[in-house]
Amino acid sequence: MPNKLSPPAHDPSHEWGLAGIVADLRASREELHRTRHPLGIRELPSREAVVRIVNGLRSALFPTHYGAPDLTAESVDYYVGHTLESTLRLLHEQIRRALRFLPEYRESSDADLSGRAFEIAREFGHQLPAIRALLVSDIQAAFTGDPAAQHITEILLCYPGVWAMTHHRLAHALHRLGVPLLARFINEIAHSATGIDIHPGATIGPSFFIDHGTGVVIGETAIIGERVRVYQAVTLGAKSFPAGNDGVLVKGNARHPVVEDDVVIYAGATILGRVTIGHGSVIGGNVWLTHSVPPGSNVSQGKVREGSGGEAPDDGRGG
Amino acid sequence: MPNKLSPPAHDPSHEWGLAGIVADLRASREELHRTRHPLGIRELPSREAVVRIVNGLRSALFPTHYGAPDLTAESVDYYVGHTLESTLRLLHEQIRRALRFLPEYRESSDADLSGRAFEIAREFGHQLPAIRALLVSDIQAAFTGDPAAQHITEILLCYPGVWAMTHHRLAHALHRLGVPLLARFINEIAHSATGIDIHPGATIGPSFFIDHGTGVVIGETAIIGERVRVYQAVTLGAKSFPAGNDGVLVKGNARHPVVEDDVVIYAGATILGRVTIGHGSVIGGNVWLTHSVPPGSNVSQGKVREGSGGEAPDDGRGG
Amino acid sequence: MPNKLSPPAHDPSHEWGLAGIVADLRASREELHRTRHPLGIRELPSREAVVRIVNGLRSALFPTHYGAPDLTAESVDYYVGHTLESTLRLLHEQIRRALRFLPEYRESSDADLSGRAFEIAREFGHQLPAIRALLVSDIQAAFTGDPAAQHITEILLCYPGVWAMTHHRLAHALHRLGVPLLARFINEIAHSATGIDIHPGATIGPSFFIDHGTGVVIGETAIIGERVRVYQAVTLGAKSFPAGNDGVLVKGNARHPVVEDDVVIYAGATILGRVTIGHGSVIGGNVWLTHSVPPGSNVSQGKVREGSGGEAPDDGRGG
Amino acid sequence: MPNKLSPPAHDPSHEWGLAGIVADLRASREELHRTRHPLGIRELPSREAVVRIVNGLRSALFPTHYGAPDLTAESVDYYVGHTLESTLRLLHEQIRRALRFLPEYRESSDADLSGRAFEIAREFGHQLPAIRALLVSDIQAAFTGDPAAQHITEILLCYPGVWAMTHHRLAHALHRLGVPLLARFINEIAHSATGIDIHPGATIGPSFFIDHGTGVVIGETAIIGERVRVYQAVTLGAKSFPAGNDGVLVKGNARHPVVEDDVVIYAGATILGRVTIGHGSVIGGNVWLTHSVPPGSNVSQGKVREGSGGEAPDDGRGG
Amino acid sequence: MPNKLSPPAHDPSHEWGLAGIVADLRASREELHRTRHPLGIRELPSREAVVRIVNGLRSALFPTHYGAPDLTAESVDYYVGHTLESTLRLLHEQIRRALRFLPEYRESSDADLSGRAFEIAREFGHQLPAIRALLVSDIQAAFTGDPAAQHITEILLCYPGVWAMTHHRLAHALHRLGVPLLARFINEIAHSATGIDIHPGATIGPSFFIDHGTGVVIGETAIIGERVRVYQAVTLGAKSFPAGNDGVLVKGNARHPVVEDDVVIYAGATILGRVTIGHGSVIGGNVWLTHSVPPGSNVSQGKVREGSGGEAPDDGRGG
Amino acid sequence: MPNKLSPPAHDPSHEWGLAGIVADLRASREELHRTRHPLGIRELPSREAVVRIVNGLRSALFPTHYGAPDLTAESVDYYVGHTLESTLRLLHEQIRRALRFLPEYRESSDADLSGRAFEIAREFGHQLPAIRALLVSDIQAAFTGDPAAQHITEILLCYPGVWAMTHHRLAHALHRLGVPLLARFINEIAHSATGIDIHPGATIGPSFFIDHGTGVVIGETAIIGERVRVYQAVTLGAKSFPAGNDGVLVKGNARHPVVEDDVVIYAGATILGRVTIGHGSVIGGNVWLTHSVPPGSNVSQGKVREGSGGEAPDDGRGG
Repeated sequence: MPNKLSPPAHDPSHEWGLAGIVADLRASREELHRTRHPLGIRELPSREAVVRIVNGLRSALFPTHYGAPDLTAESVDYYVGHTLESTLRLLHEQIRRALRFLPEYRESSDADLSGRAFEIAREFGHQLPAIRALLVSDIQAAFTGDPAAQHITEILLCYPGVWAMTHHRLAHALHRLGVPLLARFINEIAHSATGIDIHPGATIGPSFFIDHGTGVVIGETAIIGERVRVYQAVTLGAKSFPAGNDGVLVKGNARHPVVEDDVVIYAGATILGRVTIGHGSVIGGNVWLTHSVPPGSNVSQGKVREGSGGEAPDDGRGG
Repeated sequence: MPNKLSPPAHDPSHEWGLAGIVADLRASREELHRTRHPLGIRELPSREAVVRIVNGLRSALFPTHYGAPDLTAESVDYYVGHTLESTLRLLHEQIRRALRFLPEYRESSDADLSGRAFEIAREFGHQLPAIRALLVSDIQAAFTGDPAAQHITEILLCYPGVWAMTHHRLAHALHRLGVPLLARFINEIAHSATGIDIHPGATIGPSFFIDHGTGVVIGETAIIGERVRVYQAVTLGAKSFPAGNDGVLVKGNARHPVVEDDVVIYAGATILGRVTIGHGSVIGGNVWLTHSVPPGSNVSQGKVREGSGGEAPDDGRGG
Repeated sequence: MPNKLSPPAHDPSHEWGLAGIVADLRASREELHRTRHPLGIRELPSREAVVRIVNGLRSALFPTHYGAPDLTAESVDYYVGHTLESTLRLLHEQIRRALRFLPEYRESSDADLSGRAFEIAREFGHQLPAIRALLVSDIQAAFTGDPAAQHITEILLCYPGVWAMTHHRLAHALHRLGVPLLARFINEIAHSATGIDIHPGATIGPSFFIDHGTGVVIGETAIIGERVRVYQAVTLGAKSFPAGNDGVLVKGNARHPVVEDDVVIYAGATILGRVTIGHGSVIGGNVWLTHSVPPGSNVSQGKVREGSGGEAPDDGRGG
Repeated sequence: MPNKLSPPAHDPSHEWGLAGIVADLRASREELHRTRHPLGIRELPSREAVVRIVNGLRSALFPTHYGAPDLTAESVDYYVGHTLESTLRLLHEQIRRALRFLPEYRESSDADLSGRAFEIAREFGHQLPAIRALLVSDIQAAFTGDPAAQHITEILLCYPGVWAMTHHRLAHALHRLGVPLLARFINEIAHSATGIDIHPGATIGPSFFIDHGTGVVIGETAIIGERVRVYQAVTLGAKSFPAGNDGVLVKGNARHPVVEDDVVIYAGATILGRVTIGHGSVIGGNVWLTHSVPPGSNVSQGKVREGSGGEAPDDGRGG
Repeated sequence: MPNKLSPPAHDPSHEWGLAGIVADLRASREELHRTRHPLGIRELPSREAVVRIVNGLRSALFPTHYGAPDLTAESVDYYVGHTLESTLRLLHEQIRRALRFLPEYRESSDADLSGRAFEIAREFGHQLPAIRALLVSDIQAAFTGDPAAQHITEILLCYPGVWAMTHHRLAHALHRLGVPLLARFINEIAHSATGIDIHPGATIGPSFFIDHGTGVVIGETAIIGERVRVYQAVTLGAKSFPAGNDGVLVKGNARHPVVEDDVVIYAGATILGRVTIGHGSVIGGNVWLTHSVPPGSNVSQGKVREGSGGEAPDDGRGG
Repeated sequence: MPNKLSPPAHDPSHEWGLAGIVADLRASREELHRTRHPLGIRELPSREAVVRIVNGLRSALFPTHYGAPDLTAESVDYYVGHTLESTLRLLHEQIRRALRFLPEYRESSDADLSGRAFEIAREFGHQLPAIRALLVSDIQAAFTGDPAAQHITEILLCYPGVWAMTHHRLAHALHRLGVPLLARFINEIAHSATGIDIHPGATIGPSFFIDHGTGVVIGETAIIGERVRVYQAVTLGAKSFPAGNDGVLVKGNARHPVVEDDVVIYAGATILGRVTIGHGSVIGGNVWLTHSVPPGSNVSQGKVREGSGGEAPDDGRGG
């Protein structure tokens, strides 16, 4: 019988040495991490599932723009109801996985955990109409604030700031409902797509507009009022991290700015620490600010140094 | 008969309350937007289709690098012809959808709209050889301008600036042909992938090179000459937005910089307003510039403040 | 016979003029590039393959977080061995393609090239345990350095800096093994996903932490010590590019900063040229630095200019 | 500049001679089919779309078995409504394409055609509850008629006869509504999956059960009563095709059997022509029958010829 | 603000009447099936999962033909181990779902059910080497029995009989381990692909060869010895179904043929009832046999009736 | 540091015993097949690639029906040329793999093998116009021969006989060009989809029509003339297989029927051995024929036995 079912050819000069690498990697895992998974956690939240959840929620909130453009008055509620249901079911499962990482659920039974996750997902579902109202205010702020904006459709389809805020407003609700890991996951997906990095803990009022957005960073305890506008590369960060007596960083204390209503912060401005930017202030581009300013302030950068072509200043580049 | 085709189980303690959420979302849509889609627009441009169009055009322009590397002299024209045809057909459809958003086409018949879209797509097709020539000049500029560049293939495959300029040069042609929504869409796709945000209205001469690129913003009415080089986080923006007597922002007026030939702008520089950077000037990194400079200028930032380790300056961070 | 197999309809008013565009594009290819592919290279490295390679390596290094969360003690080595093998085989092929671009392999026989590629892939495989150890140190640095970090899983799933460093440490190994094109490809994929742009040639010590990360640029010849921390938009770049007598840029010389152990560099700082930042120094946000500083230095930016609401400073934006 | 953007290599010894083949194929198309598409039909029904339509309808009819097993009493109507709507929309489009092939719609305007297609799709939608009732009777017949059947779920998931009847009952409704091409398409998809070939014109009463099914053929004008059971390889075919004076086959006349209520037809039986099988008859396996039989008949095959091992009968095989 | 976020247009003349259809379908579900899912079964076995399981097992059994052709001696065991593990895990889950349909598991706790499913899957895993040996004997029988067979690879890739027997031998093992629903599912997948319909309960000895195969049916209680060969359209079926006093079909009794060693059954032969075909017999094509025959028998069909062209016999067809 | 990177949990009661199964499977491979792959063949033809090749050829032959319905006179040749080229390239590779299985190429160098494969693929390409002409004759025969056929489009999209003949005519050309393994592969793909099993060696004249088709088997050395029509379940098979003195089956000799022009063979007829069916003959359904018949013959089956309802004949079924 020609061509028997033979084993694969053995040619030592073309071996990878797999057994050795596998053993070394095993040793590396064991040496560095002598303990097991705490509680035997084997079910991690899934990035793919989280992406589908956010897309599903976006479709349920704005069905004709993100769902199916040819929905009719007759069909739209079926679409919304079905999309919501299948999305909330996915969310329930991911919440369940994420809760297990919290100390208070480490010892919970599977049934208790699932039940708690269901309650959270249901409560989250009921917050969606209010979240939608906030997002509509953000979209209107973009239309008002950008002279290049032509119509709502352009804003919904093309504005990275609106994309990022959709992620944030959903993530913030989950953060408040006690699922920080999932919330963080949602915002990192927007960060990767837009370059806008908002911590899900940040509190942001209605009618918020981020233009361009690449490089924006907003920290965990930041509080932003109504009708605030920020441009690309703006940082609302922490100034320093106090450590406790044990040398470990103190977590969770208020360490990011408070920005009051109607403030505008131009591109590249960096505001650090628990300072307050009074309402109606304008912070100029590239400004570095680590103290509070009163309402109605105007803050801008100092002058640049110029020379003629003959000079050879440091023509620094980043390459 | 065991296992009848029974309806799904009803367990009220595991209900989402979907009917309520669906009703609230419907109310939210109706309350905020009492009017219908203007003109009953139900066909929005599709992001997926636009991604396929740009990929198709890139393949037709550079068939061996982005299309099929094993094309031969015998097969390449079949490939280009077929790719062009199917891509232009997709483009025709997306242009048709986008035109409906323009006031001048709101009342057009379907046939007129489709005919106009076809003319635009055809005209766009005939501009492709010229667009290709511009892109070749950009690629050559990257090779000349970056000491790390090894060969053309590396530039075509690995340089985000070239990727963004391919999107821009295609989008700019569509913008000039009267399809701003589609053009914007194309550039936002590049913005998400590269962090480079160029408005499709910007006019950019040949041999333009963007290095690294993250955070670059170039505004709608910017005009850039030949052989200009910019680095990451450079902004060519507007200084302020005048409002008309009615308080509404004036749209479309020239409000972004003019950059003449052979200018270099280093990382983080911010140039704002309808100022002119004279030919051959060098703008240093992180500079903040809101007035014109003559040809051959050198502009750089002021000095920093330094302290020894004993001091404790604000160690501001963005976290 | 109704409905014959007829040729497509001919309607000149709906023709694209394909033949003309195809001919113009052919002329454009021929005019600008009169030579052939050097050496008839037709096999380019494939972005899709490189993405799969990096994902495969990440799964082999951290099987329960990036591979299959439900692996057990019984199955994990099978998983790692199989994943490694199929990934190294893919890598072998991509290395083979990439080597052909190097001058020293232009004349190699196919067999020699494939053999050399195999040796490199095998050597790379044997470096994976050491690479894993470096990445574990980076993950621990993130946990230590960020007050918001909750646990290792959050860091592995949600921290763009860790994502980028995984790409970099793999790419750097390939760069040192003589496959710069593939290394560059790997880091550009991370650049697109995270906004962090590290040249694969950069040398980075253990326990490196990048927070937020958007806009970070680290140049080819940078050298970074142990336990260094950098924030978003930090540039470690070159100051200028010396050209040789022939006017061509000199390639490969040391032109980026040396950062010693335990340095922290805050957001937006730009450090340019072959300067040394002494160990333990803290470089403040937005600082522009083009000279060396001794160990223990504290460097920060100058003061801003402030006005009251009545003034009208340049409210520059980037739009 | 190394590695120019060169055209693909030209190596005549590796050419396919594409231009010649393309020209010959064009000549073949033109020679054989000198006319154009009648009416310029360019939109053919799409197999992929028809597959999606049938799957969608199956899911709407049996949502927990073919749709989403975890539907609840709360969510099932949203699911059914949304699935129906998107499926009917797809169907509308495919009906529109199929109608154009009918002589009576060759001259219709696009709007008329679309309107007629909508009416048909809507009427079809309203027939679905009745179609479901028929299918439930078929499923119950399978449970009653097969001693191996365990429960309804097994029948819905594993019985090719039920699969084929689902296609047939949907196709038959479309056939009667005047869309024969689409109906035929639907049944051929089931034919390929099950080996059961039912012409969509065949009229089949409730509680019909096909066991095994491979090779079953049921012709266009067959009429089958209630509670009929057939096994694999049964043919209900035509005996001969009368031609008219012009030598062309006469189309559409009644030429297939009538099978009355409660008949059983065993494997391989072939019944041909417009004969009637009286109610309650049993037709044995492999029988060849071309005349009518009265109610209550039993028909079986003649005897076989047997020999001992010494003989050598024709050991015919099909190889 | 132009282009508000309006609700979809309402045009009654283009409504489907969805609400009515949805209500009618709900009524249809409720009327016919007044009871709920027994035990609230909501998790059905998944066809997609079963397909993946069979493919995984096939790859583990014949790794170089169905898995990855370029496996080497170094890598094959990693491949087999990893493939087995992920496949058995999938199988565990599907067994768990299928067991719930059996009366003896209706009241089991989830944990008990999962534990039992695990035991079955593990036992099944340990039977794989023996199953492989049987399949190798079938492959060798195909090579010996078909004069057209060129080599083992052709048989593994192109012989539907080998494909069907792979499904059957796996399904039979599951059937014996008490998972009939899953077993049935597996064989129906092969039935659809090959037209060969073997009930998973059938007992088939080694070195079994089915040539061509379309239309073969082998019943639940058939017993087939060693080195048996059958051709297309052979049926090993039941003759009649006795009903009990209650009129319900008696299930599970022996009602299909016993075929002893070294029997050949040619195309189209139909053997019915609990008869025995003695070893070494040859059953001719199209034979209809309902009684036992002794070892060494030769059975063939009677003569045909022939006429000259002038006659007009029934030229029956199936159309 | 909570949640260390721990190794997967070890729980012996949930182990599969993988190591044992893997070892047993290895032993099974080694015991039964002590030799290696002959010649170290590791590259098998790929089913997926063959499917793509046939689809590509079908699209090139009938571009508006199987390729892209909206092709225009301007674009069709680009489409055909591009499709041909990419398909022939795939075919080249698969031919190369298949040739290695032939004894005469076992010792060939890789370059020789590839060169020969290229020649075959090129020659095959040049036969495509002639193959298309044959297929057009088959399509016309279907239109003429089936009273239910409405138009060419229905035949191209819905007739399994045309689908199978497309595969056969392509496979037969490859068979004659010396690539039997690939040819067999192509026909088995059609066999699975249609239930029609034609050996690629069979010689079939123009205008051949298979109606319904399930269960048709046509053997390797069959010769079929012009304008022949066959129905479902027709077998043109071998009668017996002579063995040589060594007991091994003689391969390749003429052992299947010759069917002359204008013959019709009705459903279920079985014709075996190297007999000749004279031109113009009609073979009735279910006939069993093992001798030649002169031109113009009419052959039909004997009579059936009938009884009244009171009798209880063997109501044999296949279940």
